[in-house]
Amino acid sequence: MNKDKAKVREILDAVKAAGRNSLTAPEGKLVCDAYGIAVPKEGVATNAADAQKLASSMGFPVVMKIVSPEILHKTEAGGVLVGVKNADDVAKGFDTIVANAKKYNAKAQILGVQVQQMLKGGQEVIIGAVTDGSFGKLVAFGLGGVLVEVLKDITFRLAPATREDAYSMLDGIQAADMLKGVRGSDPVDRDALAGLIVGVSELVSDFPEIAEMDLNPVFASKDSAIAADVRIVVDFAAKAPRYRPAEADVLVAMKRIMQPKSVAVIGASAEAGKIGNSVMKNLINGGYKGNIYPIHPKAEDILGYKAYKSVKDVPGEIDTAVFAIPAKLVAGALTECGEKKIAGAVLIPSGFAESGHPEMQSELVAIGRKYNIRLMGPNIYGFYYTPANLCATFCTAFDVKGSAALSSQSGGIGMAMIGFSRSAKMGVSAIVGVGNKCDIDEDDLLIFFEQDPNTKVIAQHCEDLKDGRAFAEVARRVSKKKPVIVLKGGRTAAGAKAASSHTGALAGNDKIYEDVFNQSGVIRANSLRDLLDFARGVPLLPTPKGENVVIITGAGGSGVLLSDACVANNLTLMPMPADLDAAFRKFIPPFGAAGNPVDITGGEPPQTYKNTVLLGLQDDRIHSLILGYWHTIVTPPMVFARIIVEARDEMRAKGIEKPIVASLAGDVEVEEASQYLYEHGIPAYAYSTEIPVAVLAAKYKWARGAGLM
Amino acid sequence: MNKDKAKVREILDAVKAAGRNSLTAPEGKLVCDAYGIAVPKEGVATNAADAQKLASSMGFPVVMKIVSPEILHKTEAGGVLVGVKNADDVAKGFDTIVANAKKYNAKAQILGVQVQQMLKGGQEVIIGAVTDGSFGKLVAFGLGGVLVEVLKDITFRLAPATREDAYSMLDGIQAADMLKGVRGSDPVDRDALAGLIVGVSELVSDFPEIAEMDLNPVFASKDSAIAADVRIVVDFAAKAPRYRPAEADVLVAMKRIMQPKSVAVIGASAEAGKIGNSVMKNLINGGYKGNIYPIHPKAEDILGYKAYKSVKDVPGEIDTAVFAIPAKLVAGALTECGEKKIAGAVLIPSGFAESGHPEMQSELVAIGRKYNIRLMGPNIYGFYYTPANLCATFCTAFDVKGSAALSSQSGGIGMAMIGFSRSAKMGVSAIVGVGNKCDIDEDDLLIFFEQDPNTKVIAQHCEDLKDGRAFAEVARRVSKKKPVIVLKGGRTAAGAKAASSHTGALAGNDKIYEDVFNQSGVIRANSLRDLLDFARGVPLLPTPKGENVVIITGAGGSGVLLSDACVANNLTLMPMPADLDAAFRKFIPPFGAAGNPVDITGGEPPQTYKNTVLLGLQDDRIHSLILGYWHTIVTPPMVFARIIVEARDEMRAKGIEKPIVASLAGDVEVEEASQYLYEHGIPAYAYSTEIPVAVLAAKYKWARGAGLM
Repeated sequence: MNKDKAKVREILDAVKAAGRNSLTAPEGKLVCDAYGIAVPKEGVATNAADAQKLASSMGFPVVMKIVSPEILHKTEAGGVLVGVKNADDVAKGFDTIVANAKKYNAKAQILGVQVQQMLKGGQEVIIGAVTDGSFGKLVAFGLGGVLVEVLKDITFRLAPATREDAYSMLDGIQAADMLKGVRGSDPVDRDALAGLIVGVSELVSDFPEIAEMDLNPVFASKDSAIAADVRIVVDFAAKAPRYRPAEADVLVAMKRIMQPKSVAVIGASAEAGKIGNSVMKNLINGGYKGNIYPIHPKAEDILGYKAYKSVKDVPGEIDTAVFAIPAKLVAGALTECGEKKIAGAVLIPSGFAESGHPEMQSELVAIGRKYNIRLMGPNIYGFYYTPANLCATFCTAFDVKGSAALSSQSGGIGMAMIGFSRSAKMGVSAIVGVGNKCDIDEDDLLIFFEQDPNTKVIAQHCEDLKDGRAFAEVARRVSKKKPVIVLKGGRTAAGAKAASSHTGALAGNDKIYEDVFNQSGVIRANSLRDLLDFARGVPLLPTPKGENVVIITGAGGSGVLLSDACVANNLTLMPMPADLDAAFRKFIPPFGAAGNPVDITGGEPPQTYKNTVLLGLQDDRIHSLILGYWHTIVTPPMVFARIIVEARDEMRAKGIEKPIVASLAGDVEVEEASQYLYEHGIPAYAYSTEIPVAVLAAKYKWARGAGLM
Repeated sequence: MNKDKAKVREILDAVKAAGRNSLTAPEGKLVCDAYGIAVPKEGVATNAADAQKLASSMGFPVVMKIVSPEILHKTEAGGVLVGVKNADDVAKGFDTIVANAKKYNAKAQILGVQVQQMLKGGQEVIIGAVTDGSFGKLVAFGLGGVLVEVLKDITFRLAPATREDAYSMLDGIQAADMLKGVRGSDPVDRDALAGLIVGVSELVSDFPEIAEMDLNPVFASKDSAIAADVRIVVDFAAKAPRYRPAEADVLVAMKRIMQPKSVAVIGASAEAGKIGNSVMKNLINGGYKGNIYPIHPKAEDILGYKAYKSVKDVPGEIDTAVFAIPAKLVAGALTECGEKKIAGAVLIPSGFAESGHPEMQSELVAIGRKYNIRLMGPNIYGFYYTPANLCATFCTAFDVKGSAALSSQSGGIGMAMIGFSRSAKMGVSAIVGVGNKCDIDEDDLLIFFEQDPNTKVIAQHCEDLKDGRAFAEVARRVSKKKPVIVLKGGRTAAGAKAASSHTGALAGNDKIYEDVFNQSGVIRANSLRDLLDFARGVPLLPTPKGENVVIITGAGGSGVLLSDACVANNLTLMPMPADLDAAFRKFIPPFGAAGNPVDITGGEPPQTYKNTVLLGLQDDRIHSLILGYWHTIVTPPMVFARIIVEARDEMRAKGIEKPIVASLAGDVEVEEASQYLYEHGIPAYAYSTEIPVAVLAAKYKWARGAGLM
């Protein structure tokens, strides 16, 4: 794209100089021209012959309008003609308009008649841009018209957007089929529309002072997309740049904090019930092998560890300092930590911004930046990093090691993560509280977990993103390597701010999160249980090699519900090829139903489950299996569980690995069987047909987003 | 409404006599006229003066069309004028049209010129009717236009529809706001639209041979709603009337079957592992106190009970016969049961329609009707009715008595119901397998459970409804007394049949189920877990007296997620009145947040939970409470659970009862606390903010549908 930045700069400078906060229509058109954003052709004619020439060059019909500084209400003055169809009418129209204008106001200075290409037909759409407090510049796309406004059918992407982003926006609205040509209408020119989207997104990115922008309507036809009206709102107020340390520095600090050689406990206590005592006990009982330095103003020794009055008295290097002292003492101790060149402070204490003391929190941030010490919290439970047996928290020690790295903005949700993980035996590499997020936030954690060999999946609970753009940029990269799952609280909060553009008014805050998460490859969990179930199940599954899912079920009823869940979760039930159908039928009773689901019927012995699962794993056309088990005396739950693991292992030995999930319907023994399957690498769920499919779908969503299939 | 049925009958008879399957446009208009369905005014003029008179009487603009049997392509013949604006133009138009027609075909017989009221502006909508295989006649409503078709935004009700149904349809589409007047447009005439809907619904109900009908488009303006085009498709093929026993007879039979004084087990066996042995053991070990008659061709005695060769040899009356014999023997034994005047046969055996033998199933149905014996199944696990300690099934005995009556079409789903109920200690009054539903189906069960004092909630899994209309009629009545919850499998199946009308093509099968369930007061569960959780939780909750929900939470993060869930589930978070806000603030720390959610903060003692919950229960403006608990050492889980039950009991003693649900975030001890709360009448869930809100919302949905609030 040819971009005439100088031209835009010149126009914006003029607007700024004039003290205006929006561009005039002609200014808007010039800006569009500078960025190759198609607007209607137009020109001003001073005589009828010129008007004819202009109109013929742009094609009929045209719109004609009087140009006179004295005439503001052009229509009232008889100074507008719409749909002028040929050169003769243009000549007549010129004379009519000028005559009308003179009649309307004899003193008016007539500068000429504007001739403009008239747009009609095709599909009306809206393309716009907004500035979000967290994500910065976003480009928007939706259908035009009142109905679409009522349905709030609009989609967003971070600006600048790629052409691929732009095409995904065209497909990303509910009414996307309208663009493909319905009831005999032509499909729209997708390339032209994508070009406008990219152009707008680059324009607002190149010129941050453009706060909001609307192309509304854009007329999209089979061979063009032209913005009939342009509205640009500007904001020249200087913005403080966001504090964003270099990623390399983030990683160095995060590694020291999460995998410390030495930990100081500021406010360590020998007294049971105190937070400083719980932290000490958790460090010790959790099995942490590094140095532990209790810091206490008076004690000589705490729980067998030599105590120091200050971190500055500790002889060796300290990586992480866990704070368990009252809020008012934190700043002083933090300064000492800074002087000691400690990498990170884990600020358990509350009493800061969350309790009406933002100034105390700002003080910590200033100290942190001054000494280059990263701050976790304040107002948190601390964190666990199980590969180092590190329980830097006042909660109970956590012992189920595994590959899920969890974090939460809320302490309560963090406790639920701990409880669920323990109860469901979910292996965890880390659980981190980020609390008030005065410094360390979700993207710092992503940067650490990205390279952490002990972490296979990252699951985060958040209520906001302090810097959504930083998060999105990091998440886009990390999610290509490891699934990133986010539960975003506050999704239904009224997030709309006062906005002066149409696009701005449609920008519900949650829709932006939804779209940016998608753009960044983040899997969004819709509920706390989904977050936990995805974190637990997704890392067990191998990456699918294609979209073909097959259901093998003993219970026809489960098969139906599993199919429903596949459709609801955007999974593809493979149409069963005839030869494969015949192959499945060999294993199942004559009244069983092949096709997909493969219904092996309820009374079958274990070998039928095994034969069909082996076939499903062996056939290259099938990429994933969903199993529906029905508890019978012929194939009891644990027999089913063992034989499925056997089948999986036999195929794995031959180098065949496919995702398998299972739904178990039956009496309480299916709970033990589900747990057995989970512990052997197969996500399995009792009494649910939805959770196994949602977990598989989360894996698919990730694999698609990461470009792995 | 004045209905001229004779006129409609006359027209339909003529169509039938002509062997046609659709009505002409004039016939369609006459039918509409007969039912007060507004269509454009029209008339035929034979001279220009008449045309002027006609046009003036209906108002301008008008459409004029040549009327000639020889001229089919009126436009081609120059025989159509649109938008004729005044009497002069009408006169001129008459002459022009006639002249054009003569020029087009000199031999054409000119009958005159049709003058028709021209409709435009307002909102285009579509009103139609279809005939569904299960539900019969349905009336449909949606916005007109391509976009709405793309979005499939249409809603259905059983016909005939009441005016109230009709208004609910206007509000029941996604784009309902379009009817209310957006961006300065007028709201439409809701009364006129409702009148059209009711008229169409009565017409198709009164004349079952009308198979499909479209009013498309209907122009709805601020003071009228007129159908511009009418399409009526008829089907005169005789339909076999549905078999539907009288409800009184259903109830007499169902009572004998579900609460039998005597049970025969046909195919009873002493041999462990046989189904007939399991059934005997379950009857005996389940504690059934009535007579048990094993039926066996040879045995004298089975498990201590005297055996008979046939039910006809049993001396006393038998209410229920449980079949545990091969499929091929069932018909013979069923005939004997009929002769013995047994009320019901529980047909456990499979090998009928589900295995490719529909003719064997039809034989059973014929025997059942002949002898007036009701059939449960075939192809089922049997049923439980716990108030009678009756386990008429081959599964294990079920022992957790309670008030939920469950049923399933699928055996696997039935087993999941048993497992979940046992595991979650859900009290159950009955679990019934309906399997192939050759006779007894969901509405027979509704009729029984409606009057069963042991049942407070009815939860059914189904894949289809053999007679959706019967179900809907019964459910509409029963749901006013007890919540009816349905999980409908196959929701995403391609249910659209070939349809010759526009409405028919839009009638996705699942949308019909969705709308009819709503119309009948049925709570639809979206997943198996929802069905089970609703059945478990809903009957515990007292009926709310109003919409005002307040969240009281120790964890801010839970409060946010609980709020999200309220919005997603259509619950109203009460705006907190200032005086009540002040009252809550007295109990919570200064940095806690009142408002709604009431955030008491995490470090609070049990008394803070209790004080705020007591206040929430006492204040009349609050109708329901959602609690968010955060596990801390200050208020451990079981302490929280006990104090909440105490608070509830104190208020109950004063006659105050409100729904309370709870979400518990914490370590594994919250599971025990949740179970304690559930067992004390408060639905409570560990690690979930969504399930408690969904359960409360199900109660609300029921209460609203039943007109109780």
